[in-house]
Amino acid sequence: MNRQQLIDNIRRRHSFLCVGLDTDIRKIPQHLTTLEDPIFEFNKEIIDATAKYCIAYKPNLAFYECLGTRGWQAFEKTIKYLKTSYPEHFIIADAKRGDIGNTSAMYARSFFEEMDIDSLTVAPYMGEDSVKPFLDYPGKWVVLLALTSNKGSHDFQLTQDPEGERLFEKVLRKSQDWAGADRMMYVVGATQGQMFEAVRRIVPNHFLLVPGVGAQGGSLSEVCKYGMTDECGLIVNSSRAIIYASQDKDFATAAAAAAESVQKEMQTLLAERSL
Amino acid sequence: MNRQQLIDNIRRRHSFLCVGLDTDIRKIPQHLTTLEDPIFEFNKEIIDATAKYCIAYKPNLAFYECLGTRGWQAFEKTIKYLKTSYPEHFIIADAKRGDIGNTSAMYARSFFEEMDIDSLTVAPYMGEDSVKPFLDYPGKWVVLLALTSNKGSHDFQLTQDPEGERLFEKVLRKSQDWAGADRMMYVVGATQGQMFEAVRRIVPNHFLLVPGVGAQGGSLSEVCKYGMTDECGLIVNSSRAIIYASQDKDFATAAAAAAESVQKEMQTLLAERSL
Repeated sequence: MNRQQLIDNIRRRHSFLCVGLDTDIRKIPQHLTTLEDPIFEFNKEIIDATAKYCIAYKPNLAFYECLGTRGWQAFEKTIKYLKTSYPEHFIIADAKRGDIGNTSAMYARSFFEEMDIDSLTVAPYMGEDSVKPFLDYPGKWVVLLALTSNKGSHDFQLTQDPEGERLFEKVLRKSQDWAGADRMMYVVGATQGQMFEAVRRIVPNHFLLVPGVGAQGGSLSEVCKYGMTDECGLIVNSSRAIIYASQDKDFATAAAAAAESVQKEMQTLLAERSL
Repeated sequence: MNRQQLIDNIRRRHSFLCVGLDTDIRKIPQHLTTLEDPIFEFNKEIIDATAKYCIAYKPNLAFYECLGTRGWQAFEKTIKYLKTSYPEHFIIADAKRGDIGNTSAMYARSFFEEMDIDSLTVAPYMGEDSVKPFLDYPGKWVVLLALTSNKGSHDFQLTQDPEGERLFEKVLRKSQDWAGADRMMYVVGATQGQMFEAVRRIVPNHFLLVPGVGAQGGSLSEVCKYGMTDECGLIVNSSRAIIYASQDKDFATAAAAAAESVQKEMQTLLAERSL
């Protein structure tokens, strides 16, 4: 999916919500656990219930890998279901990969070629040649970790160099030499509201993937105040607050209601920018 | 496996070699490709041929994930084979994971609890709470990326703060508050020979996992000169130079010869330190 299609989808759906499919086998409703593939059945119902309120889905690989082969099957089935039934939704594989060149190339082939996923989260620690292999696929995106939503983001990402540039700023600045705003996005946590101004000084036009709204406590209006651009420029993710809105038989209806509530707030925020 | 067992194995086998199981379906010998699980069959023969020359195996997850479900099956079978047939060999899952706490916890459960793997490579970018969940498993190890073997390691890992401390040095220093030398190792690339002195100033006793010898061009004797401790303190990995020593029917014999040649060099280097 290219940048213009993404922007068009945001305008059409009045939403920049991404639903995080962090599907934990221990948290899904009891009545699904006897099915052959409970994880996929849960995802399918969540997707059907929330699709009209969001523009993207982000399965986090950890939740699938922890089940081994069975988990990978559920992951692959979920991707296929999305590509077939909801081809306009942007898919982010949240994998936080990044390795030496030949290894990153293997990951890229897996996610972009074989599974045809739109984008992948990538960790910047190993530098340019660990990221570049992901940029060899036209129409596919790298979502590079810049400033994450967790407490540990302060350990290294805020370290300043002698000129006062912080590590996350250096990541934002240097990585722009590797690809433009049509191929690269950045992860910036919603819990870092006041930091969006600093981020936007370096990447005024890039899309930002924003985790941390909901269970992690970030504020949507603060993120938009400092982070939104004239083309929106934000994909805001919510996982637990939506998919576990209820852990009972009504989980899909509850997820729809939770997603709709965020979408309504987004519609207002978009309207304020005439979007 | 605990630290003393690892040191004992190194002394007994006169080797600190780790064989990297970066098994690429496109590079394994033709005659294996018709078998039901060519990746596993290749690994099994490589392991049987090299086990007496090495003390560890390091499958890189990317090479398995890129085959989806089929790849995961091969990975799980390889781990089971190692645990059953070669229980004294240390297993490193080279996955370079690292995510917010609840997600890292899922990865930890998968690798340490369900697959009972000894250690996992972890990326430090997201800080303490992304690494800590991996430290909750007694007898299991975190192998934290510090200074990697690739060219891109210069992009961020060498960035200095105003006091002159480089990012990889900060990672080494801060992470010692999270666990000691009996639970944590560090990745330091062999291509950074002259940097081992700087590394050893901060972590004099920790084991270092050293990739980059062989195909990537690092020098074993230089690594040992600056990096070896009185307990060895090194696990040196070689992947391509061993497992693809021949891509023909004699691949296992050729791998054994390549591994033996490294082991002989290691034996001499260990003897120089009376190890």
